[in-house]
Amino acid sequence: MSRFWNEKTNSIEPYVAGEQPKPGQKIIKLNTNENPYPATPKVSKVMENLDIGLLARYPETSSVMVREELAKYFGVRPEQVFCGNGSDEVLAFAFQAFFEAGENARPLLVPDISYSFYPVYASLYSIPLKKIPLKEDFSIDVEAFCQPEGGVAFANPNAPTSLKLPLTEVEKILKANPDHVVLVDEAYAAFSDETARVLLPKYKNLLVTGTLSKSHSLAGVRLGFAIGDEELIEGLCRIRDSFNSYPVDCIAQRVAAVTVEDKEWVAENVSKICATRDRIKEELRKRGWTMPDSKTNFLFAKPCGIGADSLYTKLREKGILVRYFNKPRINEYLRITIGTDEEMDALLKAVDEIAEGK
Amino acid sequence: MSRFWNEKTNSIEPYVAGEQPKPGQKIIKLNTNENPYPATPKVSKVMENLDIGLLARYPETSSVMVREELAKYFGVRPEQVFCGNGSDEVLAFAFQAFFEAGENARPLLVPDISYSFYPVYASLYSIPLKKIPLKEDFSIDVEAFCQPEGGVAFANPNAPTSLKLPLTEVEKILKANPDHVVLVDEAYAAFSDETARVLLPKYKNLLVTGTLSKSHSLAGVRLGFAIGDEELIEGLCRIRDSFNSYPVDCIAQRVAAVTVEDKEWVAENVSKICATRDRIKEELRKRGWTMPDSKTNFLFAKPCGIGADSLYTKLREKGILVRYFNKPRINEYLRITIGTDEEMDALLKAVDEIAEGK
Repeated sequence: MSRFWNEKTNSIEPYVAGEQPKPGQKIIKLNTNENPYPATPKVSKVMENLDIGLLARYPETSSVMVREELAKYFGVRPEQVFCGNGSDEVLAFAFQAFFEAGENARPLLVPDISYSFYPVYASLYSIPLKKIPLKEDFSIDVEAFCQPEGGVAFANPNAPTSLKLPLTEVEKILKANPDHVVLVDEAYAAFSDETARVLLPKYKNLLVTGTLSKSHSLAGVRLGFAIGDEELIEGLCRIRDSFNSYPVDCIAQRVAAVTVEDKEWVAENVSKICATRDRIKEELRKRGWTMPDSKTNFLFAKPCGIGADSLYTKLREKGILVRYFNKPRINEYLRITIGTDEEMDALLKAVDEIAEGK
Repeated sequence: MSRFWNEKTNSIEPYVAGEQPKPGQKIIKLNTNENPYPATPKVSKVMENLDIGLLARYPETSSVMVREELAKYFGVRPEQVFCGNGSDEVLAFAFQAFFEAGENARPLLVPDISYSFYPVYASLYSIPLKKIPLKEDFSIDVEAFCQPEGGVAFANPNAPTSLKLPLTEVEKILKANPDHVVLVDEAYAAFSDETARVLLPKYKNLLVTGTLSKSHSLAGVRLGFAIGDEELIEGLCRIRDSFNSYPVDCIAQRVAAVTVEDKEWVAENVSKICATRDRIKEELRKRGWTMPDSKTNFLFAKPCGIGADSLYTKLREKGILVRYFNKPRINEYLRITIGTDEEMDALLKAVDEIAEGK
C-alpha cells in the first residue's frame, strides 16, 4: 500500500513468476517451462555479424522480418501475424483489445485452472471474469464455454494440466461464440499434435497466440506472437501503438527471424524434448506416480508416497526446482519442466533418494 | 472499426511514430531524435562473448545488472531504479500505477504541447486529462501546475519545444502537489545542464524517467528507466508483474549495462551532439530562422522564407526526414534531430538549395 498508488495498483495481485537462481547458484531448473537446449548455432552468427550502428536506431515497429518468417513457417500471410515482447505482452494486448471492460460488461470465460496470468490481466484491465471449472479429469468443460458471454480465453494444451483439448472441441467453442474473440493460447502447441491455426480460414473470431520461448529455446529473447484474421491483428496493433511503438528490439528481431527460419533445428529441438518427456513419464509411472499424457514440455504429475508440497521442498533442498501451485484441486501435483536427459535422470535419482529417506 | 474490437480499441487514437526508411532506402534520418553515432565498441565484445545457452532461459526480471549500473551512474540506490522495455513502456506503467482512472477521478495535468504519447496513455487507461497551455514563449505555465489535481506529467526539457524548465520551477510544482506523483520525463536531460534527480531526496512524490535511446545510442535496444522513491518503484513493479514478468530481454540487459558503465564514452557521445547542435543553431539563425536555445538533441526551429510544412515536404524529396507536427501553435516549426556533422551540413546545403529554388 502506498498513498501514491492508485486504486488498481493497491488492489491488484500481480502474477508470481517461477523462482530464478541467484548468480553462481548451481541448480537444475525445471520450474518455468524453458527449453534446456541452447538456441540454434545460427544465432551466434547473427551476434558476430551485428552492425552495432543498428542499435542506435529504433527497431522496425512491427517486427516485419519475424512476421515474414513466421508466416512462411505457419503457412499464413504476414498480415495475419503480430509480434510482441514475449507472449505475455501479446496476451495482455489481446485482453485489452478484444474483451469488454467495466462493471456492466459481459464476462470473459476462462477455465478455473489455466495460465494464472489470465485473471491478472482481467483485473488489470477491469474485465469481468467467469471461471469455468475444469471437469474432474482436468479436461476443459466445452459445453460451458458454448454459452457465449464476452469472449473466451484458454491455453491449449492447457497449463499446468498438460492436457490437449481436441480440435473438434475447440471448433465447437468457436462456433458457439461467433461475435466474440476466442483466444487459444498455444504456448505449448509445438509439443502437441494439433494446432487451432488450421481453423483460421473458417473462423474470423479465432486468435491463436504462441511463443518462441519453449520450442525455439528463446525465452531470454522475448518473442511472442499472435495469428489471426487481419482485423484482429489490426486491433492488436492499435493497442501496441497506444503503449509502445517499438516493443521488439532490433537484436531480438534478428535472432528470432533466423531461428524460425531454421526449421530442421526447431523440429529436432522439439522432438528431443518429447522423447525425454515420454521416457520420464513412464519412469515416474513405474514409481507409482499418476499423470495425464502430456502434450507439452512439462509433466503435471502426482507423486506417490509423498505429498507434492513436501517433495517440492525436498527437491529444492537438493538443488532441483520444480513448480508447485498451492491451489485447490492441483495442490497434489507438481509441474515439472522437461530438461535434458541428464537433468531428468538427476531428478529421478533425487526422487528415489527422497523415497528412501535420504 | 471491427465488431471484434472493444470500445476502447475502436475509439482510441494511437500514437504515430516518426516515419522509418524502407530497407535499402538512403536517407538522412533526422525525425525521431535518435543518436547518429554507433553504440560503444564495448557492445561488440558483449555480442562476441555471448553464451547462446543464456537465450534459452528467461531473463532476470528486474534487469538488476542495469539497475546497479544506473544506480552507480546517477548516485542512487538500485532499489530506486526501475527498468522497462523502452521509456514508453516505463511511462505507460507509471500512468497505470499512479494516476487516477475513471469518470469521477481528478484529472492528470499535462502541458498542451509535450510528448504526444501522454494523451494516448491517458485515453488507454481512462485517466481524465487537463491540458495546461504552454505560455506564449512555449515555456511551461508553472502556476497552473500548482493547482493540484490527480498528478502531473511533463517532459523536461520539453518536446518538441526543446526548452528546459529550471529546477527551481520544477520544485514549485513538486511542493504544490505533495499527495500525487509528479512525473518528470527526462528523455533529453543528458543534453541539458540540470536534472530533477537532485530533488529526489526531498520529494517522495517525484518520479524521473529516462532512456538510453538518445544519450547512449541504444534506441534499438529498448531500455528505459525510472528513478524515484522505493515506494514508487514498487508501484511500477506491481504493474509490470501484472503485465509481463520479463520485459527486458537478456541481451538488452547486458548491452545496456556495459554502455552505462562506459561513462567516458557516454560523456563524449553527448558532447559531440551538443557541439553540433549549437553550431547548426547558429547556422540556421544566420539564415533568418528562429528557435529557442535547445537543451535537447534536436532543434525546434521556425524556417525563414518558407512554411514549415512546405520545407518538410521539400526536404523529404531530397532524402532528408525531419518531423513536422500539423498542430495549432507548432505548425510553423520543424523538429530537427541533431545528426552527425556531415548529415547536418547536408541539411544546411538542402535548405540553401530550396531557398534558391533548386
